[in-house]
Amino acid sequence: MHKSDLEIAKASKMRPIAEIAEKLNVATEDLRPYGKYVAKLPLKLIDESKIKGKKLILVTAITPTVAGEGKTTASIGLTEGLNKIGIKSVVVLREPSLGPVFGMKGGAAGGGFAQVLPMASINLHFTGDFAAVEKAHNLLSALLDNHIHNQKNALNIDPRKIIWKRVMDMNERALRDIVIGLGGSSQGVPRESGFDITAASEVMAALCLSKDLMDLKEKLGNIIVGYTYQDEPVRAHQLKAQGAMAALLKHAIMPNLVQTIEGNPAILHGGPFANIAQGSNSIIATKMGLSLADYVVTEAGFASDLGGEKFLNLKCQYGGLKPDVAVIVTTIRALKSHAGIPFSELTKANPLAVREGLPNLEKHIENMKHFMLTPVIAINKFSTDSEEEIQEVTKICNSLGVKTAVSEAWEKGGDGAIDLAYAVKEAAESGMSNFTPLYSFEWGIEQKIETVTRKIYGAAEVEYSVKAKQQIKLFNKIGLDKLPICIAKTQYSLSDDPKLINKPSGFTVKIREFDIAAGAGFIVPIAGTIMRMPGLPSKPAAENIDIDAEGNITGLF
Amino acid sequence: MHKSDLEIAKASKMRPIAEIAEKLNVATEDLRPYGKYVAKLPLKLIDESKIKGKKLILVTAITPTVAGEGKTTASIGLTEGLNKIGIKSVVVLREPSLGPVFGMKGGAAGGGFAQVLPMASINLHFTGDFAAVEKAHNLLSALLDNHIHNQKNALNIDPRKIIWKRVMDMNERALRDIVIGLGGSSQGVPRESGFDITAASEVMAALCLSKDLMDLKEKLGNIIVGYTYQDEPVRAHQLKAQGAMAALLKHAIMPNLVQTIEGNPAILHGGPFANIAQGSNSIIATKMGLSLADYVVTEAGFASDLGGEKFLNLKCQYGGLKPDVAVIVTTIRALKSHAGIPFSELTKANPLAVREGLPNLEKHIENMKHFMLTPVIAINKFSTDSEEEIQEVTKICNSLGVKTAVSEAWEKGGDGAIDLAYAVKEAAESGMSNFTPLYSFEWGIEQKIETVTRKIYGAAEVEYSVKAKQQIKLFNKIGLDKLPICIAKTQYSLSDDPKLINKPSGFTVKIREFDIAAGAGFIVPIAGTIMRMPGLPSKPAAENIDIDAEGNITGLF
Repeated sequence: MHKSDLEIAKASKMRPIAEIAEKLNVATEDLRPYGKYVAKLPLKLIDESKIKGKKLILVTAITPTVAGEGKTTASIGLTEGLNKIGIKSVVVLREPSLGPVFGMKGGAAGGGFAQVLPMASINLHFTGDFAAVEKAHNLLSALLDNHIHNQKNALNIDPRKIIWKRVMDMNERALRDIVIGLGGSSQGVPRESGFDITAASEVMAALCLSKDLMDLKEKLGNIIVGYTYQDEPVRAHQLKAQGAMAALLKHAIMPNLVQTIEGNPAILHGGPFANIAQGSNSIIATKMGLSLADYVVTEAGFASDLGGEKFLNLKCQYGGLKPDVAVIVTTIRALKSHAGIPFSELTKANPLAVREGLPNLEKHIENMKHFMLTPVIAINKFSTDSEEEIQEVTKICNSLGVKTAVSEAWEKGGDGAIDLAYAVKEAAESGMSNFTPLYSFEWGIEQKIETVTRKIYGAAEVEYSVKAKQQIKLFNKIGLDKLPICIAKTQYSLSDDPKLINKPSGFTVKIREFDIAAGAGFIVPIAGTIMRMPGLPSKPAAENIDIDAEGNITGLF
Repeated sequence: MHKSDLEIAKASKMRPIAEIAEKLNVATEDLRPYGKYVAKLPLKLIDESKIKGKKLILVTAITPTVAGEGKTTASIGLTEGLNKIGIKSVVVLREPSLGPVFGMKGGAAGGGFAQVLPMASINLHFTGDFAAVEKAHNLLSALLDNHIHNQKNALNIDPRKIIWKRVMDMNERALRDIVIGLGGSSQGVPRESGFDITAASEVMAALCLSKDLMDLKEKLGNIIVGYTYQDEPVRAHQLKAQGAMAALLKHAIMPNLVQTIEGNPAILHGGPFANIAQGSNSIIATKMGLSLADYVVTEAGFASDLGGEKFLNLKCQYGGLKPDVAVIVTTIRALKSHAGIPFSELTKANPLAVREGLPNLEKHIENMKHFMLTPVIAINKFSTDSEEEIQEVTKICNSLGVKTAVSEAWEKGGDGAIDLAYAVKEAAESGMSNFTPLYSFEWGIEQKIETVTRKIYGAAEVEYSVKAKQQIKLFNKIGLDKLPICIAKTQYSLSDDPKLINKPSGFTVKIREFDIAAGAGFIVPIAGTIMRMPGLPSKPAAENIDIDAEGNITGLF
């Protein structure tokens, strides 16, 4: 029987964090420790002059299916592999949200023998970054309602046009739609509102797109919380919120250093959603990695059309980042799933189904080529995969001039990712990539949307609702049209219809409305129903979590 | 012009926390560091065999007025003074809540030259203990609503009889009374609810009354969240919540070590309200202090009738603690305030008014004597206090056989508390105290209430509402009558009427209803309107808080 992720994590011997920092030439006195195995890194370690010539590896994936792809595991495994072949590498990831920990069983710190440690701490509170984001977000909410109640609404805010909700890092169905301010005139002004999960907070997105603390403070001040009765935007700085919010984020802005199972450095920082936000770790963390190591392996949420596209168009342009290789993680099972094979039959060898599912992978390869990036395919191997099935993938990829490598990092750690490491090294050193974003921020809103939906999603048309058209007019008027876009759509399809698996074509993307993240610095075209606050399932994972007298946590994953 | 607390704090040179730990003979490898100046202490350092013979000093106060008393400042100053006269002492305090930081200007980590450091960190997030309590509390809330929605309410919970709300460490008027679960059948079951501030959470109370992690887990499992349609209590363990809740509190259960301005050790841990909860730091922290130092100075919220009484009857009985001295902090201004002098005239010398306000102090002296404790009066001196006014206090106290000492710790640190330190030392070493709780947990509910209200408040009668009487019947039936009581009433009067200042008599205490904290282990007779969720004022302190590029926080206090 397989050991659980938590059992493997516990059996791993951790080194003191100072030893890990030493591998990055970071002095112990520069660390801000959180226990023995976690430390925050000061921003002064970011050195633009050292970043040049370093290799940035984006790990993305094919379209997610019920079978899973294992992008985090592949990212960690690849880093172990790169270190094994003598390349000083660091993996830079998002921090896990606490919400899903109590919902569905499933780790967010890698899996098997490709994990970051200390696993239980990372999954439970970690260094308090999510709590700090939550507090900064909710302080703005409190100041907003207090302004209306206690400052005679001097800003003339229309309570019906407030778009700033509250957040909680919890799967909290019951808080999605609520009425607040009840109880009479001394309790505030009743209005409809709700809670999103903290990962969906614009404060999280802003934190992860900031260059430094002052940049973050400016972004926080620019957040639009709602509109006046005259439809003028009301921003956080009008509520004098940005100073206290930034003060709350003083430590949260510092990336977190941890270690992989094999004792290599890993940096975790931030955790924005990949649908309504950019879906990757902070610019600060990525630059920290590039300042301290030679190769940075980083992951973006969901597939190349969501986290991947946003990483490349949005984060890389804001951060001045230039990736060298795009690793696309795929599994044989997921390809069969894209061919319509039901979950229960995915373990049966079926090379024909693999071939039928391959167009999905091909589209993600094409997407990376649109950005002038060299793709490398990582086949995340399961014991049930047949040699013939793997050959199907290799054959197609070779015909497209794309390297493939099998990754067995989940089972073997770095030893299982040596081939992948060499393939990535070769691609990175080839100088073949010439990263080019798909659009310039200066373009018009529709032009940016059409570029992404046609080139990356493969859409035939874009359709705008009446509301969306009105909002575009408003954005043009109030100067939000020069912001990059961050399309919110289903992760289960390249299109905006979750039922269209594999490689759909001829479809129309329907933009229903826009969210704005004027502080973080993007607008969010909404192309589907987006869940901003998950609920707990009928058997919450929380029911199985326990701790003993010695502090050993069980049932986590 | 006086320096602000934050300026004084910043000008103080901090020592690495390992050096502070060394003063308590705690090895560096036993510390769980949070940055350079804060560390958590493992519970294994608690050693009952070392506690015997150690001195426990309770710092309480006269009835609070608008003038303030300075209990925390006096506690810190006394500790500095004790260390100065060669007694190895540690001050053990509550952690500040984040809510008031953004509301009213006013520190919660001492003031002037009697502060604990690093002040800004302590006031903003600190080591995440409040966030952990909040998360554990809200996880139970989420599991509860999810049970009704997603597990077909197998426990048969009556949604109208749910008493478990949610918490947020924020002054959040708008969340006091809310309706949750709106939006249709996929969003849960609509019902009335609300948020309390995190300090009011029963999880906080339970954490602070626990002996260890397993005791905490048991307490969490015993929390009553509501009642079935048949009026049977529903407890957290029926929702299988206690394991995950305890896991979330794994680090929060460890006390936090910091330093005073003069480099003496200070332990901060927990922060329960002093009206609806026990109002003092954790049993674990107090025992930690007694295990590591010779004198422990600890403070309880509000005056001797609230935090003081609860410390002595509730916490000391649960923790097996035996205090040696009760320091009662008073100010000349507060005594004049009790004589009815308006705030604007408190700086004018008025010995007659002092004399008229003294009955309040006398009652608090009497209260400590009820517990067979030797009181020492600390006169927290302000520059406007006249010698003649101070003599009024000394005279009366001497006639009662009670020592007084002027404390100038705010202005002079430990040097300003030498006299107080000697007075406390003398009282502690005299062996005069023979601490005896006022009641046994075994007594009936009414007997316990009448003992406290008559002896400590000076009430003539106790009146129970119809609802309260019904609840007493219920508690007797379901076995909650053997819990200690924790009366919630105004802090502004010895009575339950905030307008009755000084030493009221002949009044009737009206018990309107009971709250229960079956997990933490007490019942709460409610004698007044109790605020569980403060609101922000019309000029929130948050508006003035700022941070610069170097991370320097300004405007905090």
